[in-house]
Order: sequence, then structure tokens, then C-alpha cells
Amino acid sequence: MDHSQQQSKLTASIIGASGYSGAELTGILMKHPYISLGKLYAHTQAGRHFSELYPAIGCDRVFQSWEGDADSDICFLALPHGEALQIVPGLIAAGKKVIDLSGDFRLKNITEHEKFYGGSKESGAFLQYGMPELFREAISSSTAISNPGCYATSIILGLAPLFRSGIEELKVESVNVTAVSGISGAGRSAKTELSFSEMSGNVRAYKIGCHQHTPEIMQTLGSSALNPAFGFVFTPMIAPYVRGIYSVMNVQLRNPVSKESIGEFYHDFYATAPFVRLRDTVTEVRHVAHTNFCDISLTWQNDRSLVIVTAIDNLVKGAAGQAVQNMNLMLGIDETTGLL
Amino acid sequence: MDHSQQQSKLTASIIGASGYSGAELTGILMKHPYISLGKLYAHTQAGRHFSELYPAIGCDRVFQSWEGDADSDICFLALPHGEALQIVPGLIAAGKKVIDLSGDFRLKNITEHEKFYGGSKESGAFLQYGMPELFREAISSSTAISNPGCYATSIILGLAPLFRSGIEELKVESVNVTAVSGISGAGRSAKTELSFSEMSGNVRAYKIGCHQHTPEIMQTLGSSALNPAFGFVFTPMIAPYVRGIYSVMNVQLRNPVSKESIGEFYHDFYATAPFVRLRDTVTEVRHVAHTNFCDISLTWQNDRSLVIVTAIDNLVKGAAGQAVQNMNLMLGIDETTGLL
Amino acid sequence: MDHSQQQSKLTASIIGASGYSGAELTGILMKHPYISLGKLYAHTQAGRHFSELYPAIGCDRVFQSWEGDADSDICFLALPHGEALQIVPGLIAAGKKVIDLSGDFRLKNITEHEKFYGGSKESGAFLQYGMPELFREAISSSTAISNPGCYATSIILGLAPLFRSGIEELKVESVNVTAVSGISGAGRSAKTELSFSEMSGNVRAYKIGCHQHTPEIMQTLGSSALNPAFGFVFTPMIAPYVRGIYSVMNVQLRNPVSKESIGEFYHDFYATAPFVRLRDTVTEVRHVAHTNFCDISLTWQNDRSLVIVTAIDNLVKGAAGQAVQNMNLMLGIDETTGLL
Amino acid sequence: MDHSQQQSKLTASIIGASGYSGAELTGILMKHPYISLGKLYAHTQAGRHFSELYPAIGCDRVFQSWEGDADSDICFLALPHGEALQIVPGLIAAGKKVIDLSGDFRLKNITEHEKFYGGSKESGAFLQYGMPELFREAISSSTAISNPGCYATSIILGLAPLFRSGIEELKVESVNVTAVSGISGAGRSAKTELSFSEMSGNVRAYKIGCHQHTPEIMQTLGSSALNPAFGFVFTPMIAPYVRGIYSVMNVQLRNPVSKESIGEFYHDFYATAPFVRLRDTVTEVRHVAHTNFCDISLTWQNDRSLVIVTAIDNLVKGAAGQAVQNMNLMLGIDETTGLL
Repeated sequence: MDHSQQQSKLTASIIGASGYSGAELTGILMKHPYISLGKLYAHTQAGRHFSELYPAIGCDRVFQSWEGDADSDICFLALPHGEALQIVPGLIAAGKKVIDLSGDFRLKNITEHEKFYGGSKESGAFLQYGMPELFREAISSSTAISNPGCYATSIILGLAPLFRSGIEELKVESVNVTAVSGISGAGRSAKTELSFSEMSGNVRAYKIGCHQHTPEIMQTLGSSALNPAFGFVFTPMIAPYVRGIYSVMNVQLRNPVSKESIGEFYHDFYATAPFVRLRDTVTEVRHVAHTNFCDISLTWQNDRSLVIVTAIDNLVKGAAGQAVQNMNLMLGIDETTGLL
Repeated sequence: MDHSQQQSKLTASIIGASGYSGAELTGILMKHPYISLGKLYAHTQAGRHFSELYPAIGCDRVFQSWEGDADSDICFLALPHGEALQIVPGLIAAGKKVIDLSGDFRLKNITEHEKFYGGSKESGAFLQYGMPELFREAISSSTAISNPGCYATSIILGLAPLFRSGIEELKVESVNVTAVSGISGAGRSAKTELSFSEMSGNVRAYKIGCHQHTPEIMQTLGSSALNPAFGFVFTPMIAPYVRGIYSVMNVQLRNPVSKESIGEFYHDFYATAPFVRLRDTVTEVRHVAHTNFCDISLTWQNDRSLVIVTAIDNLVKGAAGQAVQNMNLMLGIDETTGLL
Repeated sequence: MDHSQQQSKLTASIIGASGYSGAELTGILMKHPYISLGKLYAHTQAGRHFSELYPAIGCDRVFQSWEGDADSDICFLALPHGEALQIVPGLIAAGKKVIDLSGDFRLKNITEHEKFYGGSKESGAFLQYGMPELFREAISSSTAISNPGCYATSIILGLAPLFRSGIEELKVESVNVTAVSGISGAGRSAKTELSFSEMSGNVRAYKIGCHQHTPEIMQTLGSSALNPAFGFVFTPMIAPYVRGIYSVMNVQLRNPVSKESIGEFYHDFYATAPFVRLRDTVTEVRHVAHTNFCDISLTWQNDRSLVIVTAIDNLVKGAAGQAVQNMNLMLGIDETTGLL
Repeated sequence: MDHSQQQSKLTASIIGASGYSGAELTGILMKHPYISLGKLYAHTQAGRHFSELYPAIGCDRVFQSWEGDADSDICFLALPHGEALQIVPGLIAAGKKVIDLSGDFRLKNITEHEKFYGGSKESGAFLQYGMPELFREAISSSTAISNPGCYATSIILGLAPLFRSGIEELKVESVNVTAVSGISGAGRSAKTELSFSEMSGNVRAYKIGCHQHTPEIMQTLGSSALNPAFGFVFTPMIAPYVRGIYSVMNVQLRNPVSKESIGEFYHDFYATAPFVRLRDTVTEVRHVAHTNFCDISLTWQNDRSLVIVTAIDNLVKGAAGQAVQNMNLMLGIDETTGLL
């Protein structure tokens, strides 16, 4: 993007701007050098000022009801699952670049979608999966993107080097994942079970073995969720903090591999990924909070077993930050623009 | 109470047992040596097990809808404001001992009640104010008690020695109170503003100068809230913790008093109060959490100005614990029974 | 224990009473109907009042330096690892009942002890392992007990039915454990990495695959830690809360088993254990906080894979509560005395 | 500053870069368009990478021991009190612009300094007080600045319009301040009393009426701390969160004033202050966290009494952000550069 383009910024609107991901996106786009923040759509909050809900972000825009968008070049959707299915086709037809943060367009397999999300969707309701570290070129040439789920981002980035290399030596027998999410992952709706009084001092697992990010993870790792090619058990939990996902992955390999070769392999795999940091010491959630980084640490157990730990900020790399990273690729500008 | 009485325990039921105060009361009464826990009434939770909501308390009772109570000797009411007004008269008429934890029967002055609570009430809807440290004898001879508010307890206990002594030297010119409550004080209902994600890392004041505990405090200190005899400004706040109220009271005296005489006077005033602890160092919330203690620290500023700090657990001394303390007095047993 | 014994209470002292486990023990023993609290030993805090450090517990005792103990019938030791090795033999020789909360006497295998604890110990420095649910009779006839570690308690109780039944059908191929501990587990010493500012909003794993509770778990499950009979990987983490351990165990069985038979088997195994609760829904840390319960939930994945979740309070069932449970057994009184 | 200056950025070093204020400053200066981050000095951490302590900030610089600085144009000092007194004169003599975040150069009155800070200092050890909202012009023409304390910033900004207007009507009789700070205000050093286990669920006041920011507040409001011209009592507290100061100020006026005129007056006073926001509803800490804003809300009590609430982020507006705001003024660039 040259200087003249910079002078005529593109306009980006957000549909579903009042939730935590939408608000995070607002804050990032406000500071993005090549973007002019367009309209903020939020059905239930229409008429209220953004700054009433999120005064720290310092945006005075008024939320509007969605009735179609004429002005924006780029549309981000951060809606409850099911709603984007209705809206995205029209936006694409109108020539806009689209980045959908919901699960609506993530799964190719309709049966899996219906099983894990409950609602139905038409065959073909699938968009390019927006994980830049794996699909940089395909994203760059796409006009519409399905942004990954937060757990999925933290788990896939930890496992992708093993699964997407094609190296026989690295074949995986089983993965057991236990991941802890901050409470912002449950969204902004009012629920007793998410109140400070109930969650302070608490930890709880939920949706053990049936979380809706499972098929998205399996699909990206090259397997079916309904008929898995390797053992995969995923236990999500929430703990009393706001931001961040911390995933602990116990990986059992089919063949013995040396510690050194695995470490080298991960470094090579992510050599050109600006937001993946391979850490020598075990990472922590606070190391990535409020950033777009995904930290990865590998701990060797024996020649066929290792523990992979990843940390991301669920609202940034797990949602709004990755969405902007995708947008940057789609616009042909540096992947890190507005994200460092 | 002699041994024979102990063998035939009295039955105590709780009307409104599913909120935080009701649950705390359940836990205390379960362990009380002279009480048999009766029915647990909770309208919206009827049919559910107490242990579903509060597994740590270990009570298997099922919540029931309130349709009058035939069996209990003692009724505790922990209902939303306004509801006890309808129920208490019938319970008294039925010969039960009654302890109401709401604000319904706290205020003598109807105008004040209507201004601060919104609803109306009949003249005479007033019960003996259940603050044992001030009204031990009157409580002992009462059959129905209005249990103090949580902020009111922490503020009145800090100020009562100055206001209820009748000593001219101790006359107060003004009091400025800033009090921090744990979030359990806002109850168990689902609200976005009470969610972990909104309150973690947050502090906020609310109802500045207009909190409904104000008239109760003024009444007990011998003044009217509508036409105050001394300056009184009360700012309540919530901060990110669950239990406890921490009140900082800036007191301006009319006349110079020595540090020693004030300290001595407080010690004398509370000499026989088992749950008031005068502390030489400034108290902390964790010092009283999960206890029925009210800690008080005095810090001298100059001969007419002092800072009084008190700490209580809002669910124990500020609600359920004080209610049981009142019950103990009404039953003629040791005030501390079941509370240490 | 009959009434006459109750009148002549036994005296229990605590060596290392100023840490979190020692303080919790103090609180429990103060309320225990058959015990008179003896001396509180704490080297670095000697001369200070217990109530300065833990005002909520309401104990006015002064900490003393340890110089041998003449008066007590029962000694609890809550010392840093290595110190009990020097003291316990003398206490046993003096005819006292001993319960050691450290790791000093947990491991039979000296090589494992030296590898995981660093220091050396003599062959024979092993005491009866104090897990009442598994060794009730042996504990009852012992005069000295080694109290289990906190992680070990939560993990062993979750797995014991599979490993200690001898049923071929239940043979385990591998276990992957990820466990989250509250920060009190790290003790009371001053460290920047445990400060509120560093741990608020944070989660971090540590000692992956090399935590010192590993050999104790393996030993109790019938295996060696150095030459394990089944796959076992244990990742401990801390998250921003004070009390509780939440263990997620991914178990791979060697043979297919039905969901019903496993559930039934667990119920039978713990049928007479008053502090183990098998829960139909996934448990939470707050369900067991401040209690001696161990909650267990089983979630079926497929006929050879299940996820076992357990929750305990690390300071109660994971330390002081279990220690008193052991003492109760040693004294021949009801296991739950003073713990409900 | 014109374009050519931008091309030759100025270099800013930080002396005392490993504490929370120093780290925050590092993060802000890294993104500042006109500044090149120079050396990071930190005695005890010398040799370690900044990113080991603060991985989220993404700075790879290595901490150095301070042995004089040859290269930087601007020096920020974030040292323990007393140390800057030795270093600042040399830096000024060397022609550098200096911004000191300690209390060393804040007080004109030596007696006050010695009473509140303990150590002595020479007469004349005073620098221009760096509160841009009050001293914008003086700061712009200064080469060395003393950056205000965090509590002082939140309290002075709330009160300055009343005290610095010269309007007789607004004369103040007394101010009672209760302020809650996040725990980061206590710094990064290891102390049991600041550990997560001790401060979770806790609130405590400290240094009641004797906090070292008192004389700085009084000096700026035109009074002496030792012989105050109006009643002033300040109670600082800490509560379980990391960032932010929330100050509640009870102001008693000498003369009756109308609500409208006070509100208007505050708006006029701060009309040109980009970081002061007068809020119609009561502000909250989360509204300013991670920002350089100071939010102010006024609540009328009666014609001579009002409650002023302010919120700042103690590490930003209360330290590093305000320091950069001062630097911007000293450099003649827009006050908000790098701070929005």
C-alpha cells in the first residue's frame, strides 16, 4: 500500500460492536493507520454511545441498528452464532470485504456444524479459514474470511507443526487438551454463573469433550471430528480472570523423536510468523494479555510424549486482533499493522 | 437454656433461603446446637436442592414455595424489600419469633421509608432494631426483630460510642463515610454490571448521599435523615472481592478531646460486646471475613478530628450472623452460640 | 470415645503453625470437641501472636520456638520439606501420636525421594500414608502418619478406583493430568512471582512432568515413578484464586468398559467415604472451598476414554482437614469429627 | 516539531526501568512517534532482558547498571525515593531534559520533605511540578520536571478548580479524602502482605493522615501541610485489583454555591485539558484503566457540600503517562502524542 492509498483510508464497519470482541475491534481499528472506523451496529444497544459501555476505549460513536450498510469497504461481524449466516452473502454480493468472527462459516461438514452448533446451515456456507500462520496466501487472495474461534486458535497453533508437516516421524497418536479461558470468553450477557460473586475463587470445566471448537480444530488438523483419525479429548475450563486462554496439550507421538529435532522443527515452521513466539521457559497468560501474540512452550516428557503449552489473549489473537491481521493480509499491507 | 431444652431443639425456617444471606443463615443454623433447621422457602428456586446452588454448605434440603408455615418456632425472612411487610404480621400473630433481614421494618418515620425505599408502608410497621451491642435487653424481650442493614451495621458500630453516650464533650459536628462493600452485597441476581468481566479490576461508587441505609443510621444515632442534626455524607462503593464491608469514617468533633480519653471510652462502651474488637492497628477485611466480628480502629488526626475504620463480613455480622445473634438473645441463650 | 474421655481432652500441638496449613489446622483443632489446642511452634514468628497473622481465626496463642515438646499427646508437623526428618523420630520415641504434613516420610523408595525432593533420607524413613479413603484400617492402628500432598490427594482420589480394584477390565493405559491450584498452595513466603500484581489475570504451569507429588501418586497407584507401569504426565498450574485444587484427568483404558459399570464401580468404591462426593454434574472449586470434601465427576468420552474431574480445598482436604481426619481415625473417633 | 525533527528522533533513557512505572514508560516510549528508546537502567536486574520481566510489552532491550549516560537527550528517573537526589543535578548540568518520577524534588519546604519522606534534602532541591493541567506553560519552558505522585494526581485534579480559582465563593472549609489504590501502587518488591493469598478478598487502609503525598497536595492547593489553611484528612487504602486510583473527596464549602455554577466552573477550568473528562455519571476505575485519562464526577449534597470522585490509572496518568505528557510539553509537541 503506497502513500496515496494511505491518504484515502478504507472504511471498516462492525456489525455486533457492543460485545467484548466488537469493542476490542473498535479499539484496534480506531488506531489503525489505514482504516477509517465506520458505523458500529449493535441491535440491543442501538442509540447508546459506545463510550457509555466502554469508556476506556475513548470512542464517541453511537450504536446503530443494522439495516444494511452502504458506506463501508470492509465489514467485520461479531454476532451471536447463526446471525451471520443471514447477512454475509449480501455483503459479499455488494463487493465488500468480509471478516466473520462467529462459527457460522468455519465448518465445511454440514453434519458437524449441525451437531456442534445446533442450527442448520446450507452446504457451501463456508469461508476461507482465517488463520494467517497456516493460510497466509489463501487469505491474501480472499474477499471473505471466517475468523477462528479463541480456543481453536490457541490449540491449532500449538499443534499445527505436528499435523501439517506431512512428516511421518511426527505422526500423532493422541492429544489431550485442557484449556483455561478468562471469563470474557463467555461474553457480556448477564448470568448469575458469570457474576463476580460466583466466579471469584472458582474454577470450573464445562462442555467436556463436546465444545463447538472441536470440529474446527479437527478440520484444520486434517481429521474429521465425527470419525477422528487420532485420539482427541478437549476439556475447556474457566478461571477467575478476564482475558486469556492457556492451553495445555499432552501429545503422544506414534514414533520416537528427539527433543532437538522437534524444537528445530517448530522454529522453522513459525520462522516467518510475526505473532508466534516460541518460548524457552513455560509461558504465562500475562505474557500475552492485551497483545496479538501466541506464545508456545514445549516440554519434553520422553521420546514419544511432550506437553505443549500455548497462551493467547482470547479477545485479541483469539478474536479481534486476528481479525485485523486477516484484514491486513486481505488489503496487502503488513500483517502486523495496527497490532504491535 | 438448660439441658432438657437442648434435647427438644426449636425449629427455625428461612423464608427467602436461596439468596446469599439466606444461604449463609442456612449454614449457620445447621451447626447451631439448639436449633433444628426447618423448611427453606424460595419462590423462584422451589423444587431445586439447596446443594445445587450452594454445594459447599452441604445441605440437601429442597427449596419450597412459601404457602404459610405451620411447623417452625422461629422464622427468618431474607426477602427482597417490600415482601416481608405482607408476611411478618401473620407470623407474629401465629406466635412465632420473627427476624426480618430486609429494610421493611427498620424505619419509624414513614416519610423516610418512602423516600429511601420507594414503596409505602403503614405507620407502625416497625420492629425492634436488632443491633445487640446497643439494644441487648430490648432484643431479649422482643418476639420480632428487624435486622440491621450491612452498611448500617458497620457504620453504626463505629460511631455509636460517640452518639449514644450523652457526653457533651463527644458531640459530633460532621461525619463523612466512605465504605467499600464486597460484591455479594449486591445479591445473587444476574446483572452485566456485576459480572466478573465487568468488576474484575474495577471500583465504583453508587447512590452517593442517597443509599437506603442512611435513614437507619441516622435514626439509630439519634437524628432525622431528612433534617439531620449533624453533617452526614455517605458514599458506598463496590470493589472486586466477595465478602466484607470496610468503612472509613471521618469524624469532626465539636470540642477538643484527648486521644486517650476517646480510646478508653470506646473500650468501656464495648467492654461486654463479644463480637466487637477494638484493634490497635488498622483492621483489614480479611481479618473479619467468614466471622461475626466487627473490628474497629481509631486513628487520631488532631484534637477535634479522628478517622474510624470498621470491618465486618457483610453476610455474617452484616446479615445472617447478626440475625442469629439476635435469635440467641431472644431465646435467652449465650449471644455467641453457633457463631464462634 | 465415651463421655469420660471427652472430659479429659487430648492435647495437640502444631510444629510449624504459622504457615497456611498450620493456621488452617489451628482453626480446625480449636473447634474440635475432643482436642485441647496445645502449643503453636513457629521458628521465624516466635514471640508474635497467632492473631496478628490470622485475626479471622480468633486464636490468641503466642508462637514459640521449638525446643522439644513435653506436654502434647499429638503432634502435627507442618514444616518445610526436610525438617520433619530430624524431629519425627524423637516424637515417636516419646510416645506421641504424630501426623506429618510434609513430603519427608511419604516415599518408600529412597532414589525417588532424592530425585524429586533434592535432599537425601535414610532407608526406612517412611510412615503410613494417611489417605483415609484407601488406608482406613492401617491408619487406625498407626501411631505416626505421613499426610498426603495436596495435588496427590486430588489426583489419587480421582484415580484410585481404577488402580486399586484389581479388576482386569479397568486396567489403565495412560493418564494425563492437568491440575490448577490456588495460590495458597505456594505458601506464605514473600515472592514477587506470587504477588497480587503478578498473579492477578495470570495463569501459569510449572514443574511440568517433574512435580514432587508425582512419585507419591505413582506409589499409591501401584507403580514406580522412575519406571512407570502406565503413561503418566502431570502438569500443575496456578491460577488467580486462593484455595482449591481442580484436577482434570484424561484416562485411557486398555479395554472397553461401559459408562454405567464405571459409574457404579466408583459409587461402590466410595460408598463408605464420608468426604468423597460423586457428582452428576461437573464439579467446581467453590463447591468444596473451606470444606473437607473431595468432589469427583466422571465424563465419558468413548468406551476406552474418560475425563475425571476432582476438586478439593488444598488447605483442608489437601492438608489440615485430612490431617485431622487421620487423627480422628488414630483416636478411634468418628472420622468426620470437627470437620463438618 | 516539524517533519525534519521527526526524522531525527530524540533518544530517551529510563533510569529505574524494571519497576512497574519504568516498564509502563518503556511501553509508551516504544510507540512514541518522536522518540527513540535509549538505554534501560536497572541496578538489581542488570544483565537480564526486559522481556523476561515484562514479555507482554515486547521489548528485547537488556537492563544495564547505571554508570552515567552519554547518549540520551531525555532522562526519565523511576527510582526509589532518595536516589534521584544524587543523580538529577548531573543530568541537568549535562544539558539533558529530565523528568523525575520520585518524590525527591516535589516539595519546596525542606521540613515537610524531611517529615514525610524521612531523609533530608538540600534547600533548592525542587523542580517544576509536572501537572500539565495546572502548569502547562511553566512545564513547556522547563528542562527538568518533578512528576506528581499517583494519589496526588487523582486528588489535586479533583480539587484544583476549587482551590486555584481565587473565587471567594468557592473557598473550601474542609476536605476528607478516602482513596483506593490498585496493588501495583505498592511496587514490584516481594512482600508477604502484597501476595495474592493475602490481598485477594482484602481491603486495608494504611498511613491514615500521614501519607507522603499529603504535603505535595497541600502545596499545590496553596497551603502548608504542617499548618493547614483548611481541614484535610487523607486515608489511602489498597483493594484487590492491579491498576487504578479511585478517590472520593468530601468537600465542605465555606459559602453556599449552586450546583449549576460549580459544574460550569469545572467545565471551564478543564476546557482545554485533553485528558480530563468530566462525567455526568459516577466514574469507575475500569473507565480509565490503561489510559491517561482522569475522570471526574461531581455529586451535589447540599449548597455547601459536594462529593467529588476521580479515577486515574496509577501507572499511566499517575506515573508514566503523565511523565510523557510532560515530555511532550517540554518538546513543544502535542500534549497527547503517544498517549491516545
